Amino acid sequence: MTIKIGVIGTGAIGRDHARRINQVLAGGKIVALSDVNRASAEAVKADIAPDAVIYATGEELIASKDVDAVLVTSWGTTHEQYVLAAIAAGKPCFCEKPLATTADGARRIVDAEVAFGRRLVQVGFMRRYDAGYVALKEAVRSRTGAPILVHAAHRNPAVPEAYITPMAIHDTLIHEIDVLRWLLDDDYVSARVLYPRNAARSHSKLRDPQVVVLETKKGVLIDVEIFVNCHYGYDIQCEVVGEDGIARLPEPMAIQMRLGAKLQNDILTDWKDRFVAAYDVELQDFLKAAAMGTASGPSSWDGYVAAITSDACVAAQDSNGSPVPITMSDRPALYS
Amino acid sequence: MTIKIGVIGTGAIGRDHARRINQVLAGGKIVALSDVNRASAEAVKADIAPDAVIYATGEELIASKDVDAVLVTSWGTTHEQYVLAAIAAGKPCFCEKPLATTADGARRIVDAEVAFGRRLVQVGFMRRYDAGYVALKEAVRSRTGAPILVHAAHRNPAVPEAYITPMAIHDTLIHEIDVLRWLLDDDYVSARVLYPRNAARSHSKLRDPQVVVLETKKGVLIDVEIFVNCHYGYDIQCEVVGEDGIARLPEPMAIQMRLGAKLQNDILTDWKDRFVAAYDVELQDFLKAAAMGTASGPSSWDGYVAAITSDACVAAQDSNGSPVPITMSDRPALYS
Amino acid sequence: MTIKIGVIGTGAIGRDHARRINQVLAGGKIVALSDVNRASAEAVKADIAPDAVIYATGEELIASKDVDAVLVTSWGTTHEQYVLAAIAAGKPCFCEKPLATTADGARRIVDAEVAFGRRLVQVGFMRRYDAGYVALKEAVRSRTGAPILVHAAHRNPAVPEAYITPMAIHDTLIHEIDVLRWLLDDDYVSARVLYPRNAARSHSKLRDPQVVVLETKKGVLIDVEIFVNCHYGYDIQCEVVGEDGIARLPEPMAIQMRLGAKLQNDILTDWKDRFVAAYDVELQDFLKAAAMGTASGPSSWDGYVAAITSDACVAAQDSNGSPVPITMSDRPALYS
Amino acid sequence: MTIKIGVIGTGAIGRDHARRINQVLAGGKIVALSDVNRASAEAVKADIAPDAVIYATGEELIASKDVDAVLVTSWGTTHEQYVLAAIAAGKPCFCEKPLATTADGARRIVDAEVAFGRRLVQVGFMRRYDAGYVALKEAVRSRTGAPILVHAAHRNPAVPEAYITPMAIHDTLIHEIDVLRWLLDDDYVSARVLYPRNAARSHSKLRDPQVVVLETKKGVLIDVEIFVNCHYGYDIQCEVVGEDGIARLPEPMAIQMRLGAKLQNDILTDWKDRFVAAYDVELQDFLKAAAMGTASGPSSWDGYVAAITSDACVAAQDSNGSPVPITMSDRPALYS
Repeated sequence: MTIKIGVIGTGAIGRDHARRINQVLAGGKIVALSDVNRASAEAVKADIAPDAVIYATGEELIASKDVDAVLVTSWGTTHEQYVLAAIAAGKPCFCEKPLATTADGARRIVDAEVAFGRRLVQVGFMRRYDAGYVALKEAVRSRTGAPILVHAAHRNPAVPEAYITPMAIHDTLIHEIDVLRWLLDDDYVSARVLYPRNAARSHSKLRDPQVVVLETKKGVLIDVEIFVNCHYGYDIQCEVVGEDGIARLPEPMAIQMRLGAKLQNDILTDWKDRFVAAYDVELQDFLKAAAMGTASGPSSWDGYVAAITSDACVAAQDSNGSPVPITMSDRPALYS
Repeated sequence: MTIKIGVIGTGAIGRDHARRINQVLAGGKIVALSDVNRASAEAVKADIAPDAVIYATGEELIASKDVDAVLVTSWGTTHEQYVLAAIAAGKPCFCEKPLATTADGARRIVDAEVAFGRRLVQVGFMRRYDAGYVALKEAVRSRTGAPILVHAAHRNPAVPEAYITPMAIHDTLIHEIDVLRWLLDDDYVSARVLYPRNAARSHSKLRDPQVVVLETKKGVLIDVEIFVNCHYGYDIQCEVVGEDGIARLPEPMAIQMRLGAKLQNDILTDWKDRFVAAYDVELQDFLKAAAMGTASGPSSWDGYVAAITSDACVAAQDSNGSPVPITMSDRPALYS
Repeated sequence: MTIKIGVIGTGAIGRDHARRINQVLAGGKIVALSDVNRASAEAVKADIAPDAVIYATGEELIASKDVDAVLVTSWGTTHEQYVLAAIAAGKPCFCEKPLATTADGARRIVDAEVAFGRRLVQVGFMRRYDAGYVALKEAVRSRTGAPILVHAAHRNPAVPEAYITPMAIHDTLIHEIDVLRWLLDDDYVSARVLYPRNAARSHSKLRDPQVVVLETKKGVLIDVEIFVNCHYGYDIQCEVVGEDGIARLPEPMAIQMRLGAKLQNDILTDWKDRFVAAYDVELQDFLKAAAMGTASGPSSWDGYVAAITSDACVAAQDSNGSPVPITMSDRPALYS
Repeated sequence: MTIKIGVIGTGAIGRDHARRINQVLAGGKIVALSDVNRASAEAVKADIAPDAVIYATGEELIASKDVDAVLVTSWGTTHEQYVLAAIAAGKPCFCEKPLATTADGARRIVDAEVAFGRRLVQVGFMRRYDAGYVALKEAVRSRTGAPILVHAAHRNPAVPEAYITPMAIHDTLIHEIDVLRWLLDDDYVSARVLYPRNAARSHSKLRDPQVVVLETKKGVLIDVEIFVNCHYGYDIQCEVVGEDGIARLPEPMAIQMRLGAKLQNDILTDWKDRFVAAYDVELQDFLKAAAMGTASGPSSWDGYVAAITSDACVAAQDSNGSPVPITMSDRPALYS
């Protein structure tokens, strides 16, 4: 069975997911495209999806009888409306981050999906599909004993001037916020932000680096270094300290070299290379669940929790090192 | 465009490749199956390829108008006849190792393909598609300087009693024989085999371990340790020493743990896990070339060279440490 | 020239230092011993220092014309009196940790030494002499760019019931307190303590693990995990994040093994093995300076700063995550 | 007790050993110096050993009543005469490599020492005192199971024009020849030399790299890569493959850095840095044994076996890949 997919938003990520569906993965076919910039949709049709029909609006695409499932890869501000429309149409829907631009928006999606009564939404938190994190989660489950501490780091070589302090949460920490909950099978109860002096390569509207400290319901203490002007490379670190021992996220595959008086291997410098394989697995999971009329993986609820956690972390950026509580309603049974 | 694939031989590897085509990769569909044991083909149809037609013989499958391309995954002794039939039919053909059971048989396939005038055959040397070897080849091309020495090892935890000395070449070294030629872009001129004492876990009909020494046209000296009762794991090592430095094949991805007074990570124990991702890439490459009516990757010529090199290595196992020359005719232009 | 050394306190550490002076290092000789338990001094004389004279009290030993320099390795509560006596006698004095049991006591030593006008005291902070830390300091000076963050860990496999929460500072963190100031060439301005849930192997009077967060005058933010029931081994980690890159303390030398499906090397389990080589270098440094009538390495001032920093950290253990300021008078010129 | 030491030959290595005795190690004192260039001995006296007496000849130094033990660090051609004189005088004698310039010369020393009836000679094979090799030997004894294969490499960044093919054995492989026998507790029975093409940085009188293959009495097969123009660094590798697993010589201690898109650590470039700590341990062992009127560590017998093995390896350099047998008489009981 081939799932017929419509893509709303044919920018870089929409185009790339269309390529995956049509040229890499089994089980799906791009049959519909839509973009506010119609030329963008035309180009994807020409290059990747010659059989696709172009729709004037995302809503029309979602409503089409020819479309089984939807990828929402439009601007973030439009995610909520398309996801709600897909739920209303009862169609599985993969939505890139963020699920919505506010926690309230994400909550409306959760409520709609709960009302519908079946999972239809997968949020694009791709790290859960990274082979390294999957192996780390298994190690935490079976080898380290119950987790007590997590030490993590998220480092970028550089960011542009437009990147200001809250973006360290919304654009950067957001990945740790989701993946660490999943890794630990736990939820957050508070956030703190601590700052060293600013890095020389940062600028006046960006506190960089920062250390975000999260506490969980089960009592795990997490520190995450966010350093987006670290200069040396794109580097994701995660170490879980458990009752019996410690497990560490693997470094990306690299050739070890002996060269020029150095034992060395390359560190990535572009974030796009780090989780590239995970995108394939993520969409494969979407196609598999969509074939059964549902969704799996990161849920609307996860998108909602990420939103309220982000809000708390941003508040903590201005709370002078004091903890900001993170509260949420009970998890609906649909997501248990 | 979807390539319609027929599979000849529906044992473990044929079934697994059928699964890849139908459930993992884009661009192909299993439409035909054949096996001397018809029940095996029926089972693959039932589990994986419900739309496939079952043919009484491989020849009938190859001849069918509904089949665009063929996977030959039957017993090794039948490979030559099916590959020759596919060439005669002008259909792209993926053939698992060995291409033929003799160098003469492989040569007949080369001659038929050359006479046909276009590449149609891909041999299942999957290591060339392993991300580690691909990165190693790039490092050798761009970083180490011209290669001078290669140190390699191919270790299995254990083999059954039926595994006797020549199988260390035909079943084990065969992978290094192909991948090292490709890695170095070179050909072999001689082989030697040196033995230490036998390992205690070996048996009277198996010299284990053994060190195979190969010399290439460009003057590279290669030593490969074959140790199929190494006990501790399945472990593939490869280190290229060049004019400027050394590059080493990456270890498989693993979680580094601190546990029980050891800094440790798992070593694989089952060969099937080591190159599992490479099989996907290999078949993806086959589908891509087949869509254009041809084949790429490891060729009939590579299969032929592997066969004559293997024969020389087996002769060298009994030549008391003296070198056995490896000679071959000129490479046909089709494979240049 | 051979420095004639007297040892006050001939327990385990005093005996071991006597052995170093007489049997390992050039330039010194044990000529005097004293211990409240005279039998202990007799045993060291018999085993290690046959030519030594035994004195009834530390004060008599210090006063002896035959003694050029003094090792104070007695109970911590007696350190202050002997160090002050050595200063009064104008004799170089190596004092094991702690310099004094209170910050006020340490201050009295500083004042006495400043009044004397020449450095005479070396405190036994041996990590500064560890080859790994020395190399790390050099890397921070010349390679990483100015430091911004430090991530450190101090882990013991287990502690006895008598080890209670403040000992995590006085007995454990004390080493990081000294060595990180030295590593960064900086001073502390505040301390915080954050707790995850208690480890299952801890007990009701010990919060374990804990994360101590220190801020420095230059704006470096330091997090140190103290985990004294980590079970898996004795493990000291230190990573310095600078403007240009990161440097990490080396793991202790170990044989990498491939064994039992693990790529593994031993982690130490006994703290005594971790810095054993540093003790030799530390005392060599003492002998060298003592030959010139002075002292080098960790000073009375360093001992005093460690004391006030420890006090602040202990206060921070009960301040619910709020920072406790660390204030000190100006550094006397003698220690600049 | 302080051993009174005379040094014959006060060039770089003699001066350095004198410094060790007088300034680093306990238990010895330089009381006598001799050199064909008297000014050299005067300089060492002035800088390091003010109390030393300068003797006109090595023989006079050895004969002096004031000298308990002798270091022979003169030109290699003179070693035999001084060692024989020390044996005749019944004085412990540390002799730098080579023990003698011919196997016959080494044999004469063995015979003299056997006739004397007590070990007096330690040869300067310092690798046996390297902490890494010591740990490797322990791992081979207790963890890997009985050894079957050894893969080793000895790489220098560059050598001068004067370094010609046989020096790859006499000056370079000589260290592996000694340390691998000791590591395996075994003896050699044959040697082969295999060559790849010459490295571009080599010259017409030097085959570089070369692979020396040694077989032992117990059936271990050893391959050693000698590459003295490897360019990238000074690098010593050793891996022992045993019945149960593999142990590898540790890399030298180094700071792991993340810098400039590389995960990297320095590789040494100067051989003098690689085993510098081992020289201290080696001489400490000499002083300890000399205090009891004897010698331990690498013996005259080991020097003799190294000489005959070297001779066989040099013969093997010209034997076109054929094995050259290594034969020796039975080991005298003095060395068992």
